[in-house]
Amino acid sequence: VNQSKTTAVVERVRTMIADGVLREGDPLPSTRAMAAELGIARGTVVAAYEQLDGEGWIRTRHGAAARVATRAPGTDIARREVPDSAPGPRPRAVSGTPRGGALIDLRPGIPAVTAIAARDWRSAWRAAADLPFRNALADPMGTRDLREQIAAQLGLTRGFAPHPDRVIITAGTSEAMSLITEALPGSPVLAVENPGYRSGRRAISSAGGTLAGVPVDEDGMDLARIPTGVDAIVVTPTHQYPLGSVMPIARRLELLDLAAARGTIVVEDDYDSEFRHRGDPLPALAALDNRGSVVHVGTFSKVLDPRLRCGWIVAPPGGSFADALRTAREARGPVVAEPVQAAVAHLLRTGALRRHLGRVRRDYAHKRSRIAARVAELGDLGLEARALSGGLHAVLTWPGPPSPAEVLRRLEDRGFLLADLARYAVTPDTALPGIVLGYGAASAVDLDRALDVLAEVLRAPAAPRSPE
Amino acid sequence: VNQSKTTAVVERVRTMIADGVLREGDPLPSTRAMAAELGIARGTVVAAYEQLDGEGWIRTRHGAAARVATRAPGTDIARREVPDSAPGPRPRAVSGTPRGGALIDLRPGIPAVTAIAARDWRSAWRAAADLPFRNALADPMGTRDLREQIAAQLGLTRGFAPHPDRVIITAGTSEAMSLITEALPGSPVLAVENPGYRSGRRAISSAGGTLAGVPVDEDGMDLARIPTGVDAIVVTPTHQYPLGSVMPIARRLELLDLAAARGTIVVEDDYDSEFRHRGDPLPALAALDNRGSVVHVGTFSKVLDPRLRCGWIVAPPGGSFADALRTAREARGPVVAEPVQAAVAHLLRTGALRRHLGRVRRDYAHKRSRIAARVAELGDLGLEARALSGGLHAVLTWPGPPSPAEVLRRLEDRGFLLADLARYAVTPDTALPGIVLGYGAASAVDLDRALDVLAEVLRAPAAPRSPE
Repeated sequence: VNQSKTTAVVERVRTMIADGVLREGDPLPSTRAMAAELGIARGTVVAAYEQLDGEGWIRTRHGAAARVATRAPGTDIARREVPDSAPGPRPRAVSGTPRGGALIDLRPGIPAVTAIAARDWRSAWRAAADLPFRNALADPMGTRDLREQIAAQLGLTRGFAPHPDRVIITAGTSEAMSLITEALPGSPVLAVENPGYRSGRRAISSAGGTLAGVPVDEDGMDLARIPTGVDAIVVTPTHQYPLGSVMPIARRLELLDLAAARGTIVVEDDYDSEFRHRGDPLPALAALDNRGSVVHVGTFSKVLDPRLRCGWIVAPPGGSFADALRTAREARGPVVAEPVQAAVAHLLRTGALRRHLGRVRRDYAHKRSRIAARVAELGDLGLEARALSGGLHAVLTWPGPPSPAEVLRRLEDRGFLLADLARYAVTPDTALPGIVLGYGAASAVDLDRALDVLAEVLRAPAAPRSPE
Repeated sequence: VNQSKTTAVVERVRTMIADGVLREGDPLPSTRAMAAELGIARGTVVAAYEQLDGEGWIRTRHGAAARVATRAPGTDIARREVPDSAPGPRPRAVSGTPRGGALIDLRPGIPAVTAIAARDWRSAWRAAADLPFRNALADPMGTRDLREQIAAQLGLTRGFAPHPDRVIITAGTSEAMSLITEALPGSPVLAVENPGYRSGRRAISSAGGTLAGVPVDEDGMDLARIPTGVDAIVVTPTHQYPLGSVMPIARRLELLDLAAARGTIVVEDDYDSEFRHRGDPLPALAALDNRGSVVHVGTFSKVLDPRLRCGWIVAPPGGSFADALRTAREARGPVVAEPVQAAVAHLLRTGALRRHLGRVRRDYAHKRSRIAARVAELGDLGLEARALSGGLHAVLTWPGPPSPAEVLRRLEDRGFLLADLARYAVTPDTALPGIVLGYGAASAVDLDRALDVLAEVLRAPAAPRSPE
C-alpha cells in the first residue's frame, strides 16, 4: 500500500465531507470504483477507507457500501454535551468563539465510541432484548455470563484468569472506588497518586474516605512517600493517570511486599491497559500477587463507551476484604441492568469487542504518532509530550511563560477545550504545570488544528485583552 | 362474559400446557376457532385468554396468534435463580421436595415481569441500540429525556410534577438509600419503619448510617415514637412495607410539620404506588410538601423488571440537602447505562408502560381476590391476610401455634418458599409473628396450591421428623 496515495484518498474524502459534497449517511463509491476512478490500487483505497473509519469520518461494513458517519468528527460540536465529570473547567460562553460558540472538547476521558461496528452494536442490544424473562431479582455480583466472559478476557490480556466468583460487576471506576471505600473498615485512609484521577478521589471522599496524596515519578507512585497507617493504596501501574509512567516490575514487586508487610490493600486501577502503543505490556499487579493483597478494577468505559456504566472489580481470592466487598455490593444492590450485562457479554463472546479494539488501537496509534511528530516539529518551543506510550491522552509541557492557565484560555478563545494538569493535583500547592490533551474521540484534523493553535499561542506574545 | 365458562376455557388451556399437548411457543387456536369448537361466545374465550396471559401461561399480541409463553409458570422452576437480596432464607436442598428439589419462590419483591408485550420490549431495546453516539461522558444525574418522562409521569399519577432538574436517576431503591445516606452530613441517624424494608436498611448501614427503628401501627409509622436527633425519616406511606398500612392525610401533614420543625429530611419510598387495589390513592408526601423537606424515591423494579436497575430520586426543589444529593451523585458517578435510560424513556413515551401496568394490575387484582377469598374460607383457622389493599404481597397471620418458622419449614418441605415476617424487624426482639407471600410473579395455580398446603399445615399436628 502506497502511504502517500492513501493519504491523498483520505484527504479527498475528508474534503468532500467538509465541503458538504458528501453528507451524513451518504454512500461512498465502492473501493473498486474509487480505485478505477483514481487509477490506483484497490488496496490503497481500502487502507484509506479503513483510516477514515478509524478517524470517525465514515462507517465501513462488510458487504455494504461505506457511508459517511452520521456524526462525522467536528460536525456535531454544537450539539455535543459537555462531560460533566471530566476534569477541567466547564465550557463557558466565549464571545467570538469560532463555530458559533461551540467548543471542540479535547479533554481526556472520552474514547472513540463511534468506531464500533453498527452491526455488532445492534446485535448486542438484540441480545439484551432477548434475555429470557426470569422471575427473580438481579444478582448484585452480576450475571454469571458476564463474569465468566470478563474472567476469560483477563486471562487472555492481563496475565491472570480469576475464578468468575471473584468478579464483581460495578457501574464503572468511580462506583468501584466508592464501593471499595465503603468496604474498608472504619474511617479509612487511602493513598492516592498525586497527580491522579480526580473522579476517583471524589468518589472516595464522598464515601467517607480520607485521601493521602503520594507523589509519582517516572516509575509511578513513589513508594517511599506512602505514609504509614493507610488502609489502601490506589495506583495506576500500567499507565499512570495522567502522567503516563509505567511502573517497572521491580517496583510492582516492592509495592506488593510493602502491602503484605503492612496488611494494606492495593487497588489496581487498570483503566486503559488495552491501549499500549509502545513496548510490551507488563503483567498486572493482580497477576503478580500471591498474597491476596490486590483488588483489580477495570471498566468498559474506555474500550467501549463511558455511557454504558459497566465495569468490574476482581476481589482477592479470599480474606476478610473480599468478604467485605461482597457484603457492600449486596447492601448497595446490583447496579448494572441485566440487559446491559447481556449486551456487553455478547460483545465479548462474539469477538466484536476484540475487532473494535483492533480498529480503535490503529486509530489511537495513528493520532498518537501525529501528536508526537507535531510536538517534535515544535521542539524549538521546548514543547514536550508525555504519557504517549499508551492510553488516549497526552500531557503537554513547555518551559513557561505563558502559564498553562493563560494557554488554556487562549486555546479556548480559538475553540479548543483542553484540561489543566493542575486540576489533577491532590492539593493546590502540589500542582504541576502543563495541559492535558485527550485524543480518543478527537478527529486527527481537530488535533492538528489544536496543536497549530498551541504553537501560535506559545510563539506569540499575549494579545492585549480589552478591559472587562 | 360467563365467568364459569371462562374458567372452563382457562382450565382447559392450562391442562393442555401442563400435559405437554401445548408446548412453549406453540400457537393457540384463534379465539374465533376456539369459540366455535366449544360452542361458546367469542368474548368468553377472549376473557379466558386475557386471564391466561395475565397469569403468564400464554402471550397474546394484537394481530398475531396467542402463543404459549416461553416460560409458562411452573415450567422453569428448576432453572429459576433465587433472588439474592430478597428477604428470607436462601433455599436449601431438601430431600424429598416435590419437582425434583426445586422450590416455588413466593417471597415478595418479584413482579410479573413476563407480562410486558414482547413487541414493546423489543422496540424499547431497539431504541436503546439506536441511541446516537455522542462523544461525551454520561451525565451523572441521568438523561434529560428520561428525567422529563419521569417528571411527567409523576404529574399524572402522583399528584406532583417536579421540574426535571429535580429528578436524579438511580440504580434502584437500595442505591437511592445508599446515596441519600452518603449525602447526609456526618454520621447520620435515620429513622426507619419497624418492621420495614430490609434491603434499604442494609444499604443505609453499609453507607455509614445508623438505624433507629420506629414502630408502625394501622396508619403507618408511629410519629410519637420517632427519637429526637434523627437526620432523616424513611417511610412508605402509600403501602407500608410489609404490613400494608396506608398513612392517612392527617398523619402525612403531621409528619411534614414534624420534619419542618426539626429540620429533618423525610424520605418517601414510593415503591409500589402503581398497584392500588382498593380505595383511592392518597397524594404523595412530595405532593403535600411545601417546605422542601421531602425526598421522593421511586423505582421501575416493581412496575417493569427488578433486573433493569433503574429508579429515581426527586430532590427537594432547593436547599442544602438537594445540593448534597447532586454532589454525591456526581462523586459516585452515573450508574444507569444511557441505553437503559433510552429504553425506559421509550416505554414511558410510547405508552407501553401504561399498557403493561393495565394488564399487570388486572392480574394482581385477580390474584389478590383469590387470596382474600381463600383466606376467608379458612376463617375457622383464624387465618388473616394483611397488606392486600395494594402492592404485590400479602402478610398472613394466625393465632399460633404452629410458629411461623415451623409453618415455613413445612411449606418448604412441600416445595413453597415464603418469607418470615420476623426478618423485616429492625431488631430480633421486635419481631412480629407471620409470613409474607409474594404474588407478583406467581401463577394463580401456585398460589392456590400454596394456600391449600398452608391450610393443611395449620390443621394437621406436626408430623414426626426423622432424626437427621
